[in-house]
Amino acid sequence: MKKVVAGIDVGGTFTKFGIVDREGKVYADDSISTDAHMDIEGYLDQLAGSIRKLLEESGEKVELQGIGVGAPNSNYYSGSIEYAPNLNWKGVIPFANLLGSRFSVPIAITNDANAAALGEMIYGSARNMKNFIVITLGTGLGSGIVVNGEVVYGHDGFAGELGHVIVHEDGRHCGCGRKGCLETYVSATGIKRTVYELLARRTEESELRKIPFDKLTAKNISKAADRGDRIALKAFDVTGRILGKSLADVVALFSPEAIFLLGGLAKAGDHIFKPAKAYMEKNLFNVFRDKVKILPSGLTKANAAVLGAAGLICKEILD
Amino acid sequence: MKKVVAGIDVGGTFTKFGIVDREGKVYADDSISTDAHMDIEGYLDQLAGSIRKLLEESGEKVELQGIGVGAPNSNYYSGSIEYAPNLNWKGVIPFANLLGSRFSVPIAITNDANAAALGEMIYGSARNMKNFIVITLGTGLGSGIVVNGEVVYGHDGFAGELGHVIVHEDGRHCGCGRKGCLETYVSATGIKRTVYELLARRTEESELRKIPFDKLTAKNISKAADRGDRIALKAFDVTGRILGKSLADVVALFSPEAIFLLGGLAKAGDHIFKPAKAYMEKNLFNVFRDKVKILPSGLTKANAAVLGAAGLICKEILD
Repeated sequence: MKKVVAGIDVGGTFTKFGIVDREGKVYADDSISTDAHMDIEGYLDQLAGSIRKLLEESGEKVELQGIGVGAPNSNYYSGSIEYAPNLNWKGVIPFANLLGSRFSVPIAITNDANAAALGEMIYGSARNMKNFIVITLGTGLGSGIVVNGEVVYGHDGFAGELGHVIVHEDGRHCGCGRKGCLETYVSATGIKRTVYELLARRTEESELRKIPFDKLTAKNISKAADRGDRIALKAFDVTGRILGKSLADVVALFSPEAIFLLGGLAKAGDHIFKPAKAYMEKNLFNVFRDKVKILPSGLTKANAAVLGAAGLICKEILD
Repeated sequence: MKKVVAGIDVGGTFTKFGIVDREGKVYADDSISTDAHMDIEGYLDQLAGSIRKLLEESGEKVELQGIGVGAPNSNYYSGSIEYAPNLNWKGVIPFANLLGSRFSVPIAITNDANAAALGEMIYGSARNMKNFIVITLGTGLGSGIVVNGEVVYGHDGFAGELGHVIVHEDGRHCGCGRKGCLETYVSATGIKRTVYELLARRTEESELRKIPFDKLTAKNISKAADRGDRIALKAFDVTGRILGKSLADVVALFSPEAIFLLGGLAKAGDHIFKPAKAYMEKNLFNVFRDKVKILPSGLTKANAAVLGAAGLICKEILD
């Protein structure tokens, strides 16, 4: 009987899930719609049914030992999803309890960046690290911080909000209602805003002048940078400078062994890794210089988020 | 036989030490000169002799179980004091090993802010807290950060350098060789610099115009503020604003239950606590609002630093 866990990645549009063993082998995986369900109970019924089906289809005999969930705005301590702006279910949803009434195994939930950190720690490139940080550069900027081998949840379960450190007083408007948060500059959305600012300020030709704001993506900008587009290259330099300076501050507080950059903007590779590293080193307190690695994820498969969620519950069980 | 530990606080001028039990009762204490000793071996001989004398004088029968040391620029992992600018002993001093050759008990060393955090956790106002931060506002700004009940040392032992987060690009010169570090604004020295900047910029009468820079202290400024001196009041507002904004960022990362302010500048009481709290709340990410306490130390005795060092080794032994 092979011992396995289920990892569930709750996204705004789709929910992906898989059956995973402790070595990170994925036995079976599938997905269902998230946003087609207005009612959480109906959603969980479908999810539970699909997971049971995967367990039956897993080929060899498997024994489910726990379920890990990565979901936006979720609180590790309470097991709830709280006021998630991008999900249909409003208010406080006791997700772990509701799912727990459908399975008699331990269930843990955390946000996607913390799940990503646990995925790196259990299955990825942070397997031998006790102090590291995972930064997800997608629509926003999320961070999962590991200290002494434990994710930092803080007193109320919401620690690790690096995206909402303020880097410019009275800066860009943020979805959180404040101004100048790091994620308004450093994220897939942030670099789009930087491109538009540069296009307004500067006069160079750029292929990005042909793309409307709503169609522009980190991928467009990266492709333009590959072709030497000066606005695109400048946008990466500006983004990398702001990120690098913030990383220098983060290193002074946490002294991590490595910082992992994940998500859409991180796919730009050297365009973002190089300036981030250079500006971090330039701004580092001297005792930390040339010590901290900036790395891509060690989980390159499409199901990295599912592995992260699986890592969360594996960590609980192993502890 | 009462079980006790020794706590040692290595300052640039004096070294204070005491015999302490697990409840924080100080049986005996004393001090020796630090800076009169150019040679570390001679210093440690005197220190060890003085500690042995205290153990004999402790009144009842005591059994030494360990020694904790708080010292500048010290590394918890290596047990060394490394390149301390304010001590006579240059380079890397294997302090714990050298002291260990004089006593056959466990010895641990950390910097003064981490020791202060452990003192609050073992004996002070953080006794029931798992996530909190201690900030020492003296000549510089030190920080001891506790996550999940453990001090954050980070990968290399030097985590918790909040004083060297950069708050103003190209700002005030810092002793670390960079510019704009938080401690150049928020510390006993930082507020002096702010007073001088205000005296240069503004025209109000102020009793602080009579005090040369080298004689000015946080205490002078606090006394002037008590009497309604407008430059002094403004200096506290400026200092509290910069501190409060930095605390908001720190809360976003760590989600602490409380932040303790200690040291010379913290003795100004409401002059610094009130603006720090107000500006922190104003800048907080919404999920953290009205949750985080800003508190004074629960260790009000003169030997708080000795208790902190004792707390370090008590924590080791208890774990």
